[in-house]
Amino acid sequence: MTNSAPVIVLVDPQLGENIGMAARAMANFGLGELRLVNPRDGWPNERAEVAASGAPDILENVQVFDSVAEAIGDLQYVVATTARARDMVKPVSGPKAMTAELQKRIGNDQKTGILFGREKWGLTNDEAAHADHLLTYPVNPEFSSLNLSQAVLLFGYEWYSASDAGGEVEGGVPDHPDRQPATRQELVYFFEHLEEELDKAGFLRPPEKRPSMVRSIRNIFHRTELTDQDVRTLRGIIVSLTRTFAGGEGR
Amino acid sequence: MTNSAPVIVLVDPQLGENIGMAARAMANFGLGELRLVNPRDGWPNERAEVAASGAPDILENVQVFDSVAEAIGDLQYVVATTARARDMVKPVSGPKAMTAELQKRIGNDQKTGILFGREKWGLTNDEAAHADHLLTYPVNPEFSSLNLSQAVLLFGYEWYSASDAGGEVEGGVPDHPDRQPATRQELVYFFEHLEEELDKAGFLRPPEKRPSMVRSIRNIFHRTELTDQDVRTLRGIIVSLTRTFAGGEGR
Repeated sequence: MTNSAPVIVLVDPQLGENIGMAARAMANFGLGELRLVNPRDGWPNERAEVAASGAPDILENVQVFDSVAEAIGDLQYVVATTARARDMVKPVSGPKAMTAELQKRIGNDQKTGILFGREKWGLTNDEAAHADHLLTYPVNPEFSSLNLSQAVLLFGYEWYSASDAGGEVEGGVPDHPDRQPATRQELVYFFEHLEEELDKAGFLRPPEKRPSMVRSIRNIFHRTELTDQDVRTLRGIIVSLTRTFAGGEGR
Repeated sequence: MTNSAPVIVLVDPQLGENIGMAARAMANFGLGELRLVNPRDGWPNERAEVAASGAPDILENVQVFDSVAEAIGDLQYVVATTARARDMVKPVSGPKAMTAELQKRIGNDQKTGILFGREKWGLTNDEAAHADHLLTYPVNPEFSSLNLSQAVLLFGYEWYSASDAGGEVEGGVPDHPDRQPATRQELVYFFEHLEEELDKAGFLRPPEKRPSMVRSIRNIFHRTELTDQDVRTLRGIIVSLTRTFAGGEGR
């Protein structure tokens, strides 16, 4: 199952019932891998088990993480679900188009995942900034708040409907067999490296603006689907630029 | 709302949570009229109100009946949801085809409704016999038991998607009127600036490899559709990084 469907990542889920119902919805539609970031009531969770109603193997294999960054560290393509337009320069798609894109990437042997936010207010901008692509559902604008497990269900439904159709699945040959998208971990190291140097240089000031500056810099590079080779090149550039004027070996 | 969407009829619902979640799902997708046949815990139901999470007008207008026959007495076209094939000579459709049929009938001013069965085992054959048409969902056959509210949700989703309001968001980066793609000239200045610094730093060596190195660096940034703001940010980064270790104002 590992690489045949997107990983589902629930960020700060509050209610065990919702986790269990999400697992049940995943089982209904052939999704297998569930990850949790900081479930409020800890893990394992008895209410989740009751609500899963016989989807136990998904719950047994749940992985729990302390942060979104860790939960998606091994993924190459990350989608964030969102109910509202965000002031982010990222592509946005509905579930059908998103499913097609995910199928294509999985066909190219990429590891993918979808972030779902906490019940009351979804994902923070910082969390959504981790994503390559935003997923939004066509929902009545006068009552647009979807229950968490139902948001998972709707994705699963579209995913399964598309898989079931068989012929519609876009197989696709990898564009660059020798070039794989960087993993999230490689990107995070790159960002941390860049931000460390920019902190030293006093670029990320004043402090109250640092978070939004960091976010917009990260978004520039997220949009570009960097390969592992790209990341090596960019890190070489940073080392090179910061070393020049030091007159020595630098870092 | 009366005749603009099918009535949702829950038969013998056991859990108030499911009634409330079904009402919420209806509100998410523009369905308005909910009827209950013999809700186990009576009506009104506080757990339903909590779970409806702000879809109160649907719950306030719920009608309660003693039998399926009474609940559908005023309807002209009735659909029964079912998870399994039944030994009945009735047409069966998936949710998309069912939605199209319902739209057609509502367009002809017919009053329509959909029956959903009790949580554990759905509708009896006698109850399903009331229907003109069976509705079934494409679900993983190895785990086909859908939660009641999620079955309502999936119909609502297809219903709303087929409506004028419910079109899927098209892919692509949303327009940000204040963010324009960088001009080619801005890009060229940026590249020249970067390459000048990299030449100084000795990064673009040996000389015979310089053209291909420059090309791959430019390609990283070409792929990303930089905005004018992005280019200013990136140039600021270069200035900042090269100035740090110079100990002065730099360039």
